[in-house]
Amino acid sequence: MRLNATFGGVSVQAISWTASGAVRVLDQRALPEAQIERDLESAEAVADAIRHLEVRGAPLIGIAAAMGLVAGTRELRGGAREAFLARLARLVDILGAARPTAVNLRWALDRMARVATSTAGDGSAIWERLHAEATAIWEEDRAMCRRIGEHGLTVLNDGANILTHCNTGALATGGIGTALAPIYLAHEQGRRVHVFVDETRPLLQGSRLTAWELLHAGISCTLITDAAAATLMRQAKVDVVLVGADRICANGDFANKIGTYGLAVLARHHGVPFYCAAPWSTVDATLADGDLIPIEQRPPAEVTSLAGRPTAPAGVAALNPAFDVTPARYVTGFITDRGIVQPPFGS
Amino acid sequence: MRLNATFGGVSVQAISWTASGAVRVLDQRALPEAQIERDLESAEAVADAIRHLEVRGAPLIGIAAAMGLVAGTRELRGGAREAFLARLARLVDILGAARPTAVNLRWALDRMARVATSTAGDGSAIWERLHAEATAIWEEDRAMCRRIGEHGLTVLNDGANILTHCNTGALATGGIGTALAPIYLAHEQGRRVHVFVDETRPLLQGSRLTAWELLHAGISCTLITDAAAATLMRQAKVDVVLVGADRICANGDFANKIGTYGLAVLARHHGVPFYCAAPWSTVDATLADGDLIPIEQRPPAEVTSLAGRPTAPAGVAALNPAFDVTPARYVTGFITDRGIVQPPFGS
Repeated sequence: MRLNATFGGVSVQAISWTASGAVRVLDQRALPEAQIERDLESAEAVADAIRHLEVRGAPLIGIAAAMGLVAGTRELRGGAREAFLARLARLVDILGAARPTAVNLRWALDRMARVATSTAGDGSAIWERLHAEATAIWEEDRAMCRRIGEHGLTVLNDGANILTHCNTGALATGGIGTALAPIYLAHEQGRRVHVFVDETRPLLQGSRLTAWELLHAGISCTLITDAAAATLMRQAKVDVVLVGADRICANGDFANKIGTYGLAVLARHHGVPFYCAAPWSTVDATLADGDLIPIEQRPPAEVTSLAGRPTAPAGVAALNPAFDVTPARYVTGFITDRGIVQPPFGS
Repeated sequence: MRLNATFGGVSVQAISWTASGAVRVLDQRALPEAQIERDLESAEAVADAIRHLEVRGAPLIGIAAAMGLVAGTRELRGGAREAFLARLARLVDILGAARPTAVNLRWALDRMARVATSTAGDGSAIWERLHAEATAIWEEDRAMCRRIGEHGLTVLNDGANILTHCNTGALATGGIGTALAPIYLAHEQGRRVHVFVDETRPLLQGSRLTAWELLHAGISCTLITDAAAATLMRQAKVDVVLVGADRICANGDFANKIGTYGLAVLARHHGVPFYCAAPWSTVDATLADGDLIPIEQRPPAEVTSLAGRPTAPAGVAALNPAFDVTPARYVTGFITDRGIVQPPFGS
């Protein structure tokens, strides 16, 4: 694997530019067995990579989409303004349709589109501006991760046992993650922390990605099946639950990986603090509450097979919602780059 | 697959005698991809099959252990009483150590040992008596399943949506199951029922076995990941939760497949009735409460790999408790062959 940067003690870089302006990603479908970098040369290739989860994590897909617009308009640099903007609008639509739940994707695309139309000049001028803006989105995300980590440090005492779900680390962002950011910083500062990692069926982002990241960083962790979390809480082995978010509504209801809501109920039941960590760009103030969040339904085959091998009888029906909604009342606090905050959230 | 019997509309037979007195089992590790019958010729082979989950389900492993004693003493039929009983005692120990949590295993072995010592005569006489006793345990289990089903029918209205965990059906018993028995009978009587099947990580007994059984029986079912159950309850899509038990204490605390406790908490939180279905032989009145139940810890590799393919990075630590304990206060009722009952349970 090519390592473009190190940060927070973590030597994992999920995304970067190639020399020619394509989007280089670490193929997250291949982890942990293989570390494969892929160069995505077009916006369509980026959309496919997002759809197939080669690139995932709400903040990271926002960054990837912004960079995908740049990669996909390289050949129009010599063209007229109108042709460039027309093509850009089509690519915004294609990328925006790749995954419906994460608001960061839409947020990044809107920001890029706004910048494009407000930039004077021909394709070349707009393209240069878009390249700078996508890089800014990435760099801002990296800084946001660090601020989330700093604010979240206050909830992690020395010796803390943290339970987390899915992947919210360096593989989900441009930096050190969202829910994992406080853990990275605590480790960096020499606090002893231990992480229980939900494997996160069906796609095992916890076992494949989070465990891999934490092992790389030398952070103590133990993998569990999702259904084992409840009994750990009953045994008082979990001090705090930290999860990410794909979209946070004005009232604080939020969508995150399927299984998050159950953890929230269990945490409440056992008196365990439950925090949602996300950049402020995850707030969608246009949605009053969680019932309005579109929930992506993914293919049943993700539940009925693993690595191409069937794990269920042929012909069985399966439900595969990628996300669930956790009402705000279960959340102890939202750890954002603006501090640990409480709803309601304005725009 | 050889089908030895049909019952309750289900054409699945998890266990039977071979003509020579060996134990014929359906290898549950191979399902749903392949339906393989294996003839276990010795008690040691039965113990291995139990340990490796070729035969599983609390009632079924009790039956298998009893039959294993018979298979394992065939060559001593011509021998003296003392030699026969000495060998039997060794086989009881070997089979009893195969899995620590299910009380039915110990219950069946104790019953067989008692019968052996109370039978007069030489090896031949004792062996004949043991064969009859093992067959009786099996036949009683089949009848118990049906009675559990009849009592449990009262909790299943027409149109009921049931959530279940692990496998508690024809593959877990000598008959139509425990928690699945009311569902089989409701279907037999023409009531419309629909079953949400938790896949039940790490070994996927829900997707591999329960979904397979229900499909065979023509019962409507939908497979979900374990972590999706919470959001279904929040959406009011679950009318009742039915689970089995591996051991029930005097106070009603019970051990069942890991994940059961979480479902119990979620059911309580959402006002969904939560029933535990098990034969009376699952009650271990010698244990005052659930803290005393030995919980089997299985190999971490069951969590970190699937079908030999790693799903987590090499070297990661994993916890793999096979069971959890659900306190009695979460249970709406215990559906047993003696009716729907409440603790405390005497012997």
